Amino acid sequence: MLEELRKRVFEANCELQRRGLVVYTWGNASAIEREKGLIVIKPSGVPYEELSPEKMVIVDLEGKLVEGNLRPSVDTMIHVYLYRHFEKIGGVVHTHSLWACAWAQAMKPIPCLGGTHADYFYGEIPCTRALRPEEVEELEKNTGRVIVETFEGKDYLATPGVIVAFHGPFTWGDSVEKAVFNSVVLEEVAKMAAATLTVNPHAPGLPAHLLEKRYQRKHGKNAYYGQPKDA
Amino acid sequence: MLEELRKRVFEANCELQRRGLVVYTWGNASAIEREKGLIVIKPSGVPYEELSPEKMVIVDLEGKLVEGNLRPSVDTMIHVYLYRHFEKIGGVVHTHSLWACAWAQAMKPIPCLGGTHADYFYGEIPCTRALRPEEVEELEKNTGRVIVETFEGKDYLATPGVIVAFHGPFTWGDSVEKAVFNSVVLEEVAKMAAATLTVNPHAPGLPAHLLEKRYQRKHGKNAYYGQPKDA
Amino acid sequence: MLEELRKRVFEANCELQRRGLVVYTWGNASAIEREKGLIVIKPSGVPYEELSPEKMVIVDLEGKLVEGNLRPSVDTMIHVYLYRHFEKIGGVVHTHSLWACAWAQAMKPIPCLGGTHADYFYGEIPCTRALRPEEVEELEKNTGRVIVETFEGKDYLATPGVIVAFHGPFTWGDSVEKAVFNSVVLEEVAKMAAATLTVNPHAPGLPAHLLEKRYQRKHGKNAYYGQPKDA
Amino acid sequence: MLEELRKRVFEANCELQRRGLVVYTWGNASAIEREKGLIVIKPSGVPYEELSPEKMVIVDLEGKLVEGNLRPSVDTMIHVYLYRHFEKIGGVVHTHSLWACAWAQAMKPIPCLGGTHADYFYGEIPCTRALRPEEVEELEKNTGRVIVETFEGKDYLATPGVIVAFHGPFTWGDSVEKAVFNSVVLEEVAKMAAATLTVNPHAPGLPAHLLEKRYQRKHGKNAYYGQPKDA
Repeated sequence: MLEELRKRVFEANCELQRRGLVVYTWGNASAIEREKGLIVIKPSGVPYEELSPEKMVIVDLEGKLVEGNLRPSVDTMIHVYLYRHFEKIGGVVHTHSLWACAWAQAMKPIPCLGGTHADYFYGEIPCTRALRPEEVEELEKNTGRVIVETFEGKDYLATPGVIVAFHGPFTWGDSVEKAVFNSVVLEEVAKMAAATLTVNPHAPGLPAHLLEKRYQRKHGKNAYYGQPKDA
Repeated sequence: MLEELRKRVFEANCELQRRGLVVYTWGNASAIEREKGLIVIKPSGVPYEELSPEKMVIVDLEGKLVEGNLRPSVDTMIHVYLYRHFEKIGGVVHTHSLWACAWAQAMKPIPCLGGTHADYFYGEIPCTRALRPEEVEELEKNTGRVIVETFEGKDYLATPGVIVAFHGPFTWGDSVEKAVFNSVVLEEVAKMAAATLTVNPHAPGLPAHLLEKRYQRKHGKNAYYGQPKDA
Repeated sequence: MLEELRKRVFEANCELQRRGLVVYTWGNASAIEREKGLIVIKPSGVPYEELSPEKMVIVDLEGKLVEGNLRPSVDTMIHVYLYRHFEKIGGVVHTHSLWACAWAQAMKPIPCLGGTHADYFYGEIPCTRALRPEEVEELEKNTGRVIVETFEGKDYLATPGVIVAFHGPFTWGDSVEKAVFNSVVLEEVAKMAAATLTVNPHAPGLPAHLLEKRYQRKHGKNAYYGQPKDA
Repeated sequence: MLEELRKRVFEANCELQRRGLVVYTWGNASAIEREKGLIVIKPSGVPYEELSPEKMVIVDLEGKLVEGNLRPSVDTMIHVYLYRHFEKIGGVVHTHSLWACAWAQAMKPIPCLGGTHADYFYGEIPCTRALRPEEVEELEKNTGRVIVETFEGKDYLATPGVIVAFHGPFTWGDSVEKAVFNSVVLEEVAKMAAATLTVNPHAPGLPAHLLEKRYQRKHGKNAYYGQPKDA
């Protein structure tokens, strides 16, 4: 079932490791087949060198196992929650990458300090509130919930990622490959913001007119970055 | 003697180098065969490229040489002391990994600032007190002693590592492979804590209800991380 | 057309990636053939693994496409502007390298704190002013303009690089290979300056007599660094 | 001439690059044949990939060329000066490694904050004074002079390295291989000290009784680190 998507999700998970975002099994990527309402996700706690497309797990939009011999990622209910509420996304990625986690543990949104950030995220990358004691029993589902809560009134496509308080980054995109891409970018941007504040704790932040221009030249309707087929 | 264990200890030492935790010969891993009361440990000061399973050294629970042509690690008496007092451990690892040493030289426990930490260490990773002048003659034995002293009233299995003041990290586990794993995690967590405080010197630290939940979902009796066989 | 130069520009772009200065497609190198007034530059947004000498794009000194099936780099007008105003340069490089971007986002010139810097840049590496709202419509052209403005009254050959406010580094040289070299050096120097200020926020900066000597022993008329053929 | 020593000096220079201490040509290693009063040193500004044992240059204790078709390292007179005044050393190494340069540019000695440092350097690693205007004409010779001046009343064998103000690290040892080793250790120690102060700006520094013990267990007459043949 979903053979092609299994391969892509497998590859996406491997790419996270090749990019240095993942230590041991600390990450997971998934993709959704919207028409069938099925999600392909990495199994929980299996070393990367033992992964294969066949070991990917398929669950439905309730998080129930549909196909696979292994338990799905412990964070599956977060992915499920995001697919249900962010209806235009096709892939979700979670890692424990160093600098994104640093901002998450610092309980601070990642400020937009320059063009590298603005090229891919339209303004600061928000940090969720912490889960409350009564919310931890359903830790994963409620993590999904606070992410969605954080984006109330915001465009989750223009800011395709978030850091979860005390936890780490989640990113998404129209495909799992794009979610991986955004995950790499988010880590670069998180590291660059920390480096910037080391050099100048009072860095002014990217002015609005530059944020607008930088973001639009890549993503606006008159975007002129890349080749026409990319547009 | 203990041919299989020699191989595992050899492999564990090599893994420390592959993971980037060791410069030159600055690290050592050991394992114990509890029934025979014998410990297999790396020889002292031998370059990694010259190591082999045969060169591992076997000592008893007094630290006396039982088999091998080489001197055991200079830190052998620390390992021995830990095996005698932490009766449920099967492996011990010591390195001079950068960020763990930074916290050790800073004389500060590594605070539990987020979920990555809580997934493997149940609360802060303690820092021992410094050895006193009268304790340095038996430097290694007394280093073992202050580690054990540091864990009085604490569960050494729930916090499988420590940083020794002015020195560096020691970790343990039910096997030498697990001790290596904990050593990698401790370094990641030490680095992430430092990065977090760079971003926010007033990072609040992980609330108790999240520490509890994060730790228990991986290690509690109803743990649901990983595959059933891992439980 | 310009077959040899296409190869060199292709190689220069690859070298940026090998040196770790580029994530994804975030960099571009170009060279100019002065007699013909033609510039060879990387195409926009094409993954490095798909690049080849044939895919390099040729534009003229107005930035108009002369040869190639792909769109040139989004930053082409910056390169063009520099070639028109810095008449002695043969190559230009732009990257989003971490520490150079950190200083650029911090809106601070990179101070000359020691000999490594002075060996290649004669004094601080300036930071441009930010573009004003009315300047963003022609973002790239005006970026070129503020770079040139920044060098008014300065010797752009003695300081072969700049950081653009909120953006990142641009370097140049008599050849594209030299521009790449300066790009690597600028990143090293940017990182070393940040590390220096971490250790001592009041680092005094390189005294004038040492700056003079260091720079001249490599670049002055009596330079004695390297082999005679290099002079 | 000195064929064997040429090979060793060549290898030592390559090792500096493999260890990540050298960018481009920014480093040099040399060895002395004391009986003949001849020094083998890297040529100036030659890329590492073009180096070979044959390209090493031989100079005498005045710094005069004895054999070789290439100019010796620009820092040759520093090496020469050290060999003349530190009569027990057999090898000298200079690099621009990041953290050692950071301390040098910060004009601060590297404090002895823990055991990793004390295992190889008996106390803080000193920083020279800056050269005065009247000293820059003979920059290299006077750099040698201020290093020797810095060690007046100190044991250059117990502290086999220094950082030169505004410049970078020099290390030495009884052989060129040992000088390379000390160069790697100095960089690790420099990085670890900076990391320590990031975590705790008031790190207390290694107490004298621990410094004494740590250094002596590796280097004292009753040293017990490593294998007997190493002693």
